Amino acid sequence: MALLFLSTPARIPVWRPLFDAAGETLIESEDAVCDPAEVTAIACWQPPEDLSRYPNLRAVISVGAGVDHLPPLPQGVALSRTLAPGIEAMVRDWVVMASLMLHRDMPTYLEQARAGEWRGHPVPLAASRRIGILGMGRIGTLAAESLAALGFEVAGLSRSGKAGVVPMFAAQDFKAFLERSDMLVCLLPLTPETRGILNDETLSALPMGAKLVQAGRGAHLDAEALRRALDAGRISAAMLDVTDPEPLPADHWMWSDPRLIVTPHVAAETDAAEGGRHAVSVMTALRHGAPIPGLVDQSRGY
Amino acid sequence: MALLFLSTPARIPVWRPLFDAAGETLIESEDAVCDPAEVTAIACWQPPEDLSRYPNLRAVISVGAGVDHLPPLPQGVALSRTLAPGIEAMVRDWVVMASLMLHRDMPTYLEQARAGEWRGHPVPLAASRRIGILGMGRIGTLAAESLAALGFEVAGLSRSGKAGVVPMFAAQDFKAFLERSDMLVCLLPLTPETRGILNDETLSALPMGAKLVQAGRGAHLDAEALRRALDAGRISAAMLDVTDPEPLPADHWMWSDPRLIVTPHVAAETDAAEGGRHAVSVMTALRHGAPIPGLVDQSRGY
Repeated sequence: MALLFLSTPARIPVWRPLFDAAGETLIESEDAVCDPAEVTAIACWQPPEDLSRYPNLRAVISVGAGVDHLPPLPQGVALSRTLAPGIEAMVRDWVVMASLMLHRDMPTYLEQARAGEWRGHPVPLAASRRIGILGMGRIGTLAAESLAALGFEVAGLSRSGKAGVVPMFAAQDFKAFLERSDMLVCLLPLTPETRGILNDETLSALPMGAKLVQAGRGAHLDAEALRRALDAGRISAAMLDVTDPEPLPADHWMWSDPRLIVTPHVAAETDAAEGGRHAVSVMTALRHGAPIPGLVDQSRGY
Repeated sequence: MALLFLSTPARIPVWRPLFDAAGETLIESEDAVCDPAEVTAIACWQPPEDLSRYPNLRAVISVGAGVDHLPPLPQGVALSRTLAPGIEAMVRDWVVMASLMLHRDMPTYLEQARAGEWRGHPVPLAASRRIGILGMGRIGTLAAESLAALGFEVAGLSRSGKAGVVPMFAAQDFKAFLERSDMLVCLLPLTPETRGILNDETLSALPMGAKLVQAGRGAHLDAEALRRALDAGRISAAMLDVTDPEPLPADHWMWSDPRLIVTPHVAAETDAAEGGRHAVSVMTALRHGAPIPGLVDQSRGY
């Protein structure tokens, strides 16, 4: 029973002592596999193409929070995504930063600064800004809590619409949710249902001059629809941490449009120790037949 | 008994109904004063040079949160600064934004974006950042609460050092406070004691690579000392909402240095209704001999 590690080698010195302490076996690369039947789990961003080499494989552990990049796994192989409070807090921090930057007109002030222009604009109270969060999972809930604590009027959208830390809209009230959101925050997982969800129709349902915070996946957003919404004044400014494609080509218009700020997919990265602890917990669960931590429902995509 | 209004005329339509409802008299300009003896209070940013024209003047109300720009007032004339929860929350929001922007390397990402460069850097956890807040008044306390809620390790410095929402250093432990602060937030009032407090000596006591958030007053900071600290790597990046002079000249090096982000003194502006309510409350206090709201100790400067 062993875990095959196929992620950033720099993390191995952090994972190794965690595995040793738990009495679990860590194999550092495919070349180091002596007996493929020994491999019970693989920790990776992208698994090897041919998983049939590992007859006793029972789990693939995604070392990131997202799993949309993974192919369907064979019957009997569970998918676990790394549950890491650190990742969730990092994304929350980026979303709070981006929301404040748009709320306080940083794209305008940065453009003015390039011209050495000292000119103030009206300062809005947080209470005057209605933020709508698309995707009220663990990260969305954290972001909602922090933004509400700063005084923003926050609402969320979820499948069920059941109330949480902030008022919630159900999926069938998507249009009403968009119409009340001066600032839209996307934290959705990427699934067949959510691909392209930020398009001409949804963006044009936002109030005029709305702001967009995009920390989901690049493929949620139709970039040309965003450009049309910016040119129409429907969206006044946006912050994007994810794009399609990634990396965003150096000559892409989104880099140079002063209404947009793009960061290179840095809202979060897995802390090596958190990732290692999660991997150990999956091994322990497999050993004892316990429920697998971070289990993903592959039919739903999260 | 009347209040003489010498501030932004656009606020008069908001103040007028508040004064009418309270049965107080509002005079809209010096030209509109028929009987100078009627003027009990003046609301202004800068008072008229010759206050001796108003024999019954008992209070000057600063329409902003700061009072450092005001000359000493004649004996018997109280100074009140506008107490406005909105102002305090606005500054808090700007400070949280600026702290997150520096924590998450936005100056670097903005510079990379100008070159279309997609390159990530290690993502730090908030818990790994020690923020030190200089000036733990009402705004400092609000900022400390919000930053601590995001997981930052926050400490404050105050005259007394008495514990509050975060651990506090006393004034005599200033050097120890600086040495533990990876990020220094200045929210001090400007007084003879605090003028030039951010200088070669204090900046060089910070840990290497420290960040600076400056939301106090421009005259706290020796800009050339900041340049030396940046060039020495002592300070890695800073966000400044206040400068000396203001406006910052268009060709000033601080606009174009990629390690700095300057905003044009927009951390807060007084909400007209909040300012009007405060002025009415001062008039009511004067009428009834009650303590004056927002009374400033002019010998201390805040």
